[in-house]
Amino acid sequence: MVKNCFFIILMCIAIGCNTPSSKIVDVSDFGAFPDSSDVTFQVRQAMEHCKKIKATKLIFPSGKYHFYPDAATEKYFFISNNDEGLKRIAFPIFDFDCFEIDGQGSEFIFDGYVCPFIVENSKNITIKNVSIDFVRTFHSEGTIVATGEWGFDVVFDEKFPYRIQAGLLNFYGQGNNQYPYSNLLEFDPIKKETAFMAKDYWLWNPLIAEELPDKSVRIFRKDVKATVGNVMVFGSKYRNIPGFTLTDSENITIKDVNLYHCGGIGVLGQRCNNVTIDGLIVTPKPESNRVVSISADATHFVNCTGKIIMQNCLFENQKDDATNIHGIYAIITKIISPNKVEVKLMHSQQHGFDFIKKGKLIEFVEAPALFTVAEDEVIDVQRLNKEYSIVTFKNPIPEDIKIKDAIGAADEKVEVYIANCIFKSNRARGLLIGSRGKTIIENNYFHIPGASILFEGDASYWFEQSGVKDCIIRNNIFDNCNFGVWGNAVIQVAAGIKPEMRDKSRHNSNIIVENNTFKVFDPRIINLYSVDNFIFRNNIIEETNDYPSLYPEAKPFTINSSSNVIIDGEAY
Amino acid sequence: MVKNCFFIILMCIAIGCNTPSSKIVDVSDFGAFPDSSDVTFQVRQAMEHCKKIKATKLIFPSGKYHFYPDAATEKYFFISNNDEGLKRIAFPIFDFDCFEIDGQGSEFIFDGYVCPFIVENSKNITIKNVSIDFVRTFHSEGTIVATGEWGFDVVFDEKFPYRIQAGLLNFYGQGNNQYPYSNLLEFDPIKKETAFMAKDYWLWNPLIAEELPDKSVRIFRKDVKATVGNVMVFGSKYRNIPGFTLTDSENITIKDVNLYHCGGIGVLGQRCNNVTIDGLIVTPKPESNRVVSISADATHFVNCTGKIIMQNCLFENQKDDATNIHGIYAIITKIISPNKVEVKLMHSQQHGFDFIKKGKLIEFVEAPALFTVAEDEVIDVQRLNKEYSIVTFKNPIPEDIKIKDAIGAADEKVEVYIANCIFKSNRARGLLIGSRGKTIIENNYFHIPGASILFEGDASYWFEQSGVKDCIIRNNIFDNCNFGVWGNAVIQVAAGIKPEMRDKSRHNSNIIVENNTFKVFDPRIINLYSVDNFIFRNNIIEETNDYPSLYPEAKPFTINSSSNVIIDGEAY
Repeated sequence: MVKNCFFIILMCIAIGCNTPSSKIVDVSDFGAFPDSSDVTFQVRQAMEHCKKIKATKLIFPSGKYHFYPDAATEKYFFISNNDEGLKRIAFPIFDFDCFEIDGQGSEFIFDGYVCPFIVENSKNITIKNVSIDFVRTFHSEGTIVATGEWGFDVVFDEKFPYRIQAGLLNFYGQGNNQYPYSNLLEFDPIKKETAFMAKDYWLWNPLIAEELPDKSVRIFRKDVKATVGNVMVFGSKYRNIPGFTLTDSENITIKDVNLYHCGGIGVLGQRCNNVTIDGLIVTPKPESNRVVSISADATHFVNCTGKIIMQNCLFENQKDDATNIHGIYAIITKIISPNKVEVKLMHSQQHGFDFIKKGKLIEFVEAPALFTVAEDEVIDVQRLNKEYSIVTFKNPIPEDIKIKDAIGAADEKVEVYIANCIFKSNRARGLLIGSRGKTIIENNYFHIPGASILFEGDASYWFEQSGVKDCIIRNNIFDNCNFGVWGNAVIQVAAGIKPEMRDKSRHNSNIIVENNTFKVFDPRIINLYSVDNFIFRNNIIEETNDYPSLYPEAKPFTINSSSNVIIDGEAY
Repeated sequence: MVKNCFFIILMCIAIGCNTPSSKIVDVSDFGAFPDSSDVTFQVRQAMEHCKKIKATKLIFPSGKYHFYPDAATEKYFFISNNDEGLKRIAFPIFDFDCFEIDGQGSEFIFDGYVCPFIVENSKNITIKNVSIDFVRTFHSEGTIVATGEWGFDVVFDEKFPYRIQAGLLNFYGQGNNQYPYSNLLEFDPIKKETAFMAKDYWLWNPLIAEELPDKSVRIFRKDVKATVGNVMVFGSKYRNIPGFTLTDSENITIKDVNLYHCGGIGVLGQRCNNVTIDGLIVTPKPESNRVVSISADATHFVNCTGKIIMQNCLFENQKDDATNIHGIYAIITKIISPNKVEVKLMHSQQHGFDFIKKGKLIEFVEAPALFTVAEDEVIDVQRLNKEYSIVTFKNPIPEDIKIKDAIGAADEKVEVYIANCIFKSNRARGLLIGSRGKTIIENNYFHIPGASILFEGDASYWFEQSGVKDCIIRNNIFDNCNFGVWGNAVIQVAAGIKPEMRDKSRHNSNIIVENNTFKVFDPRIINLYSVDNFIFRNNIIEETNDYPSLYPEAKPFTINSSSNVIIDGEAY
């Protein structure tokens, strides 16, 4: 009942177009035909025409279309949690209103450094019925064929071209296009998931390697654990090519899309109002034999407002979390006058993230405790560059706020509805929930190596503003989660609050976990701190032997520095 | 006499300001004081004030000023022959008219990735009386202390911080700021020049290395020739931080500047009209003990017009040529209709170089022969991105012009006057002269490891448009040049014309070499092809034994595929 009301409200909001007559443009009228060599220029012309005539829809006769960077639109973008840069964009949906792209079941094949979709300053946009893949993935995969005191040997399929140059392993695409890597992670190709308890190896440089006579590649890296038969994934160094970037836009729907690959986050929404993702399938392309789908999180939302709906999705085998919904903290680096401070966007993948504007309501946060001290209005901002801004407030900043404390948006309380999805077999965690509006997570299936639902956020490392205020987790199945290293319970708090501050902070509050099924080989179900009002009720817990139990003596519920926690009817 | 006329004409042109009253701003009024920590923000405020009040001059009380990237202005720049990117700029001279910055003898010390000066869309600008250095150079230098079958061992001064990470050598500045390298070149620290016949080693990756107990660093690279006592220079991978970028501006003067270091070209002028460089000293900072001054060419001019004057300069120990004056060719990649083509800027350091505009006169060039077939006017340009544009001409393109042929500006005939300069001890060549206007090179001293004066240009590798039409080289001293690998004569043609096309092409013409002194240990003085009208007269040639003579039997004059060549009064 709650679900239905919530959904109906959103659907009403999302229908914002007032289009008495539809104007449909067919890409084939611009010379873009399936199975031709490169349709980027033709599609660009079609898009320009759509904008000019205010078309309501661009359609693709069903087929396979190829996109290359050569004729693509170019623009510099700061894309949160991805890498900034001068991007090539196949579908630049800039300043559109009431516009739909319908692939009609087409396959879009991208080759090289070209972003599929960027939606900017647009309203009432739908992208649907399309599958997306890349000829050359941004990561590389090698089957482990031997191990020894030197490290391990791998064999690369020809889909992952490489060269050994002056004793180091580099990956390439067409020509001299490099595909740099910066991490290693082992996958189990039988189970099609990250190998049991596999950990990340972070690399500063290419690996020392040599090609053996049998064309396998010997990697000289003694500290890496590797198992013959598993697949070693050489993870992309950069997140330059997200699948869908939605920025400063409103009422955006992605529907019935298969996203087999991209070189960054699958769907990144930043400063958007109302985003619906319905029927997004993130998976390695069938018959590709790959173990990894996309190279970072399936979805990720930063400083969004209105509602985020994610339903009927499958997110599997991506190289990072299923979603992460949060704001951004800027850190105070100078106090210039009583009501004027210099602030810095700390994390390099947050640089250029313009969220502090004149008129905006801002919270002042004691960074080590994630404790909101006060709110105030911004009356002036001078942006110095992508890192630093000078911000003037209406009133003097609070006395308790000092250099290294944080400011974040106080007026963005996005509501979240995540339902009927399957989240599985990816690196790291499932849902990172930092939304302050009503949040419902229901009827989903989780099989996640780390925490399935994580309440994270900090003002000291990732600088991600979070803290739920109303979160219901119900009717989900958590199936043998925690088979990896990225968590300590199925539902977990991992907020960056200094241990000595945790008694003071109640960063997350009002969380209900009910009517779920937990199938566990690892007893750890809940791990909390600094939470107020947590209820765990009517859940089914089933023990399994599907993975080795490394923590058989661990407690299912670990609760610290929290208030009003009730587990199965008992105060905890 | 010719010199004086030329100079007087230029001086008259350069005085373009009509400023009845001078408005002088002192940076100390904005809180920028010598020896304080970081004046970037204060100078930025002063610059903004200057723009607002239309100040004529910004002065610095003499002293040492420190600049960091933190508070610097930021803008994306395509800078020819350097690396494009989002730059931090300490002195953003954007849209100024009649403005002078007078350091009054101050030292400006930069720390990190911050460009000293960028002049854009400005007129009548002077920058003078200042010295520039960086706390951490963009290259690194190590003294060679041992060699062996493994490669060589070096010791790094603490000015060049490094870390060995997973067996590879990386250089750092403050914090985690990397200073990547991509080449090796050996210098002779006694002679303070590139080691005799030292060659470049180009690197794809960081080098495999280990730190020995005595803190020297062992480099495992068997093919590198190294001599104990020499200095191995680990050359900067990128040219991100040129010293002075002058773009789309007019009447710019750089006077009495010591440029001890920058991470790119010293002075890069692109699409500028009238540039004067007077008293620019490029040298390693005295007492720094460095063998390298700046990390690329001392100066470089691309598609400039009007006049370039360079006088009273010292350019030494920079990591590339003393100057290079040329245009840019774009290559035809598609013929769309009789008068419409797609063209591409081929070299990555030319991407984004906007030189094809509506109304512009363009030459069509047979690329393999560098042979101009015709000229025509541009009537429309659609820029697809930094690489590709679609260009429409007034008339059908010539029949002889095909895909892979080139187009270049036909209406840019910059005049060049280079006098009273010392050019020495740098990597590679002296003056690369591709200017089509009157060019005079006189009263200079050259001690250059490659060709001292090179007529280069091609439409197949560097895509640099060149071909002099009127060039006088007189009263210069060429002192023991060609002690390195970058040339085959003191004055040389190395245009990229296919050997079988050289008889057809007369790419360079009307060159007079007179009244110079050539002190030679290597007999090779002149090497030409595809030249029309070359006169060599009244020069003094003195033999020396200052370096080993590797080519004792070589001819002083090598002339091929040329017409009207007269050497010492005799047709050649």
